[in-house]
Amino acid sequence: MNFELNNSIEILERTPLILESFLSNLSSNWIKNNEGENTWSPYDIIGHLIYGEKTDWIVRAKIIVSQSENKTFESFDRFAQFKENQNLQISDLIAKFKDLRKSNLQELKSLHITSDKLALKATHPELGEITLQQLISAWVVHDLGHIAQISRVMAKQYDSNVGSWKAYLGILNK
Amino acid sequence: MNFELNNSIEILERTPLILESFLSNLSSNWIKNNEGENTWSPYDIIGHLIYGEKTDWIVRAKIIVSQSENKTFESFDRFAQFKENQNLQISDLIAKFKDLRKSNLQELKSLHITSDKLALKATHPELGEITLQQLISAWVVHDLGHIAQISRVMAKQYDSNVGSWKAYLGILNK
Repeated sequence: MNFELNNSIEILERTPLILESFLSNLSSNWIKNNEGENTWSPYDIIGHLIYGEKTDWIVRAKIIVSQSENKTFESFDRFAQFKENQNLQISDLIAKFKDLRKSNLQELKSLHITSDKLALKATHPELGEITLQQLISAWVVHDLGHIAQISRVMAKQYDSNVGSWKAYLGILNK
Repeated sequence: MNFELNNSIEILERTPLILESFLSNLSSNWIKNNEGENTWSPYDIIGHLIYGEKTDWIVRAKIIVSQSENKTFESFDRFAQFKENQNLQISDLIAKFKDLRKSNLQELKSLHITSDKLALKATHPELGEITLQQLISAWVVHDLGHIAQISRVMAKQYDSNVGSWKAYLGILNK
């Protein structure tokens, strides 16, 4: 698929709704269990997505289109969510994510992105030079990756319950 | 996680809602593209889930708890969805899946499943002897696996758009 801003936004704006239908009012075992040591639960993943809305995607998009001379991003803290209150309800976390995403997409639209702007560049501290188009694409893929991860983490909670079906359930072998 | 019927049903009953928030009113590129030859699009996956509701999970659950002497399942056709009309709207497919799942969960509840019934067995044509508990668990994991697959198929449509971010986006390397 070629990049289209509208195709990207239609994913970005539905992610909070997908997560809400996935996780709201679900038993805490499904929400809080992970895949083992140093892995993330669905709860952790929502925390990570919130932190990304606060400090990563839109912040970096604005750096790219800015007139600044130094267009280098700050590093992103992949573990910031563990420093937050771990006792919030998942529905509150999802509501927070939904609000942040909504206002960030309003900001994105307010940048009046043209094809010229999509080609503007900045420097990622580890990945080097990237364009606005690549950043928006990565934002979309990042959402989809974490939806897949939530599904996988939850599926693995039932790993020992499926018996010989495991051979047919590829998600348990990832 | 230990198996609990209620924990299983809470996933099974929300899958149609997850798919609806994921795929309804989405551009056809996202819905109809796949991962390459002999792979499935989100559209194909919904067709597969519909066929499973019609011929697989609940049908097999009823065989297990029946008084039949021959409790061997029919083989499941993994490619049945390709024999169906390929021009239905995705929203119609999802509505169909939602209806089928709802009535199948009503049937499941009407079986009045006890822990004794969960241990009842039947024979899967390839996997051998399985229990009702394993079948219900596999039904749950099967849903979650296909949600993860839909996310992955969609993410891969943007593979060539993310530039050097690909190294950080594990979903593109699966």
